[in-house]
Amino acid sequence: MTAGPRVVDLIERKRDGGRLSAAELDQLIGAYTRGAVPDYQLAAFCMAVVWRGMDRVETAALTSAMARSGERLDLRRFGRVVDKHSTGGVGDKTTLVVVPLVAACGVPVAKMSGRGLGFSGGTLDKLESIAGYRVDLSTAEFLAQLERIGLVVTGQTADLAPADGLLYALRDATGTVPSIPLIASSVMSKKIAAGAHAVVLDVKVGRGAFMKDLPSARALARAMVGIGAAHRMAVTCLLTDMEQPLGCAVGNGLEVAEAVATLRGAGPPDLLALARLAGAEMLLRGRKARDRRGALARIDRAIADGSGLAKLRELVVAQGGDGRMIDDTGRLPRAPRTETLRAARTAYVSDIAADEIGLASVRLGAGRERKGDPIDHRTGIVLQAKVGDRVERGAPYAQIHLAGRDTDRAAVTQIERAFRWSARAVPRRRLVLGRIASR
Amino acid sequence: MTAGPRVVDLIERKRDGGRLSAAELDQLIGAYTRGAVPDYQLAAFCMAVVWRGMDRVETAALTSAMARSGERLDLRRFGRVVDKHSTGGVGDKTTLVVVPLVAACGVPVAKMSGRGLGFSGGTLDKLESIAGYRVDLSTAEFLAQLERIGLVVTGQTADLAPADGLLYALRDATGTVPSIPLIASSVMSKKIAAGAHAVVLDVKVGRGAFMKDLPSARALARAMVGIGAAHRMAVTCLLTDMEQPLGCAVGNGLEVAEAVATLRGAGPPDLLALARLAGAEMLLRGRKARDRRGALARIDRAIADGSGLAKLRELVVAQGGDGRMIDDTGRLPRAPRTETLRAARTAYVSDIAADEIGLASVRLGAGRERKGDPIDHRTGIVLQAKVGDRVERGAPYAQIHLAGRDTDRAAVTQIERAFRWSARAVPRRRLVLGRIASR
Repeated sequence: MTAGPRVVDLIERKRDGGRLSAAELDQLIGAYTRGAVPDYQLAAFCMAVVWRGMDRVETAALTSAMARSGERLDLRRFGRVVDKHSTGGVGDKTTLVVVPLVAACGVPVAKMSGRGLGFSGGTLDKLESIAGYRVDLSTAEFLAQLERIGLVVTGQTADLAPADGLLYALRDATGTVPSIPLIASSVMSKKIAAGAHAVVLDVKVGRGAFMKDLPSARALARAMVGIGAAHRMAVTCLLTDMEQPLGCAVGNGLEVAEAVATLRGAGPPDLLALARLAGAEMLLRGRKARDRRGALARIDRAIADGSGLAKLRELVVAQGGDGRMIDDTGRLPRAPRTETLRAARTAYVSDIAADEIGLASVRLGAGRERKGDPIDHRTGIVLQAKVGDRVERGAPYAQIHLAGRDTDRAAVTQIERAFRWSARAVPRRRLVLGRIASR
Repeated sequence: MTAGPRVVDLIERKRDGGRLSAAELDQLIGAYTRGAVPDYQLAAFCMAVVWRGMDRVETAALTSAMARSGERLDLRRFGRVVDKHSTGGVGDKTTLVVVPLVAACGVPVAKMSGRGLGFSGGTLDKLESIAGYRVDLSTAEFLAQLERIGLVVTGQTADLAPADGLLYALRDATGTVPSIPLIASSVMSKKIAAGAHAVVLDVKVGRGAFMKDLPSARALARAMVGIGAAHRMAVTCLLTDMEQPLGCAVGNGLEVAEAVATLRGAGPPDLLALARLAGAEMLLRGRKARDRRGALARIDRAIADGSGLAKLRELVVAQGGDGRMIDDTGRLPRAPRTETLRAARTAYVSDIAADEIGLASVRLGAGRERKGDPIDHRTGIVLQAKVGDRVERGAPYAQIHLAGRDTDRAAVTQIERAFRWSARAVPRRRLVLGRIASR
């Protein structure tokens, strides 16, 4: 694909609502990755995809093309390796809880994570709250650690699905992010290249997530399950609520502390519930449990006997981190100052706008507006009440961890405004909104 | 507009069906022309415009922004200068006939023309059949010639609406050509920058044109009239048939010869009719006639008294061309060989597919598939029958002028197949399908 007109033909066909063959998508993505097709042609193509969409077959073919654009790991010698991925939300530290539990139950977990952007946090940023924790393992280190302790959580290597990295940066700059086939192929190409046998996907739904409503979240889940089916990868999607933040902590060090608490059996109920469910799905996919009930029991045991927490410590130490920060989360980086929000009158929390909390955490320094911005691991918010909770007049409902930034005041105001109150009792939010899985 | 996010916001707004302000379009186009906004962002933006369109106000603002991206000519000292433009078709040599007629009637005509691409020929290529004719006049030469002989036909200077040149090349490579606001603003930005007071636009409709049907041609005409109104430029659009080629000659030298014949009063009826109508519109816009009847009479006189032909010769000589080629069109470049197609049985011509004839002419070397390809001024086709004509068995209906290229055979077959025949009488095609004009 060196001649210009061929690429234009593909763009025009998609623009006019037509379909591209697997061979055409493979050529297009391959040539783009090699630099033989310019960014401007891919940008126009992506906008045409946002407009016209892609069918199941095209989406799978695009994913294959991206997965094949670089190195592919072969993890067969490790047995059934299971991956876990969240589409991203506010306060979503589930990975930190669930992957040690699952690994402690004997399922090898090989996870490549991302960084946070906008109001959505990233697992890598959270792990980097732990002094020394390395997220830049080489492929050899990745495989050696998986062999040795059955668990690895690192950043994506540049060799894996490089087309996705290029395409994502381009989409980010050209307003072509919101497209289900493009999102689904981006997620799944990395999973396929990373070589796991199965993946449990947590598709977040609501204001604090990329998918704002259940129908679009379902469409994304179905697209990812479809891609998995085309690649012999078992996929389970949980669709979970992201109208309010998950758990109580929002901010990197604070979220690590909450994950540790959850592994000690003292976490917030919603986080614990999600970790149990996702963990059970992973055990089932890893064939370490016969049924859901048995799987849940194994997860519960790994919390009760401390083996999950021990596995997290093992992970941290294996990747160069300071294990004492897990033993005593008081050693995690701490903001110099906290501020407590207290209820003006006795009332029930009726709403906590996850997006507003997420944006406030960015203002506190806990997240980044632009790729590459530094973040402050110390700052963030701890919600002391969630939707449905009753708060007495004068009682605290949020603790804000501040580093003394110019934007602190605006963040505090935004957090106050993110809460809605009701004089009458309000039901708690349902956490799990759906489940879509391949057989 | 140096920060990326701003541009992304504009792309996203258009993607979501929103509107851009004049200031925003001005910033976007200005920054793009300076190289401060990358091609890939404009490519995504253009595809979003193809998808979502632009309203009348946006289209006018985009046109202004492009017209202001470079030099603007001020032609006020020449009185009411009138321009003429065709959206392009097969065999469309109307400019070569009409602009000398109009100039001979005392209306200054300053025209910047383009080259042919695909099946659509370009006035510059036709004029270059004449040995020595220069199409690269400087702005100073352009103005001096307009002053001296009241007529100039040259290529667009790079300084005029440079944003349009950049954008057109980008659209060509990204499948974003077919968009009425983008097409209309591209045409009109050049007209506005070139400084004429009025323009008569020939919007071609049919298989051999860019606009395939009357509704889209009408929409384009309305868009261009709207842009004119916003820029105090009088615009008259004629919507004319391009289902069959215009006139009989298709190919550069052959078309010059046909234009000369028409100026001598011996041209094909459809070409003569269109030249009279377009010429009359130009005289009315140039205020050299009180009404259409008077305008048509003046045009007819300029044919009858030879002043139109004399003006064409004056133009050719002024721009360095060999005037003897106008006196004797036998001196124009001639193909080494001709082949004649003859009717297999007596029948009426029911159809001559303009696009097929155009593509065949490209195969004969008379047109170019890609920008910058060389063309052969000698080759082409002369239709000896048009739709509605009765051809006796064994009588010629097309003469093909060949240069001995590999693709000659395919071209001849394509020309044969472009003709459809009927045993029963077929009506002639209507030439003028509509007229849309500002007041």
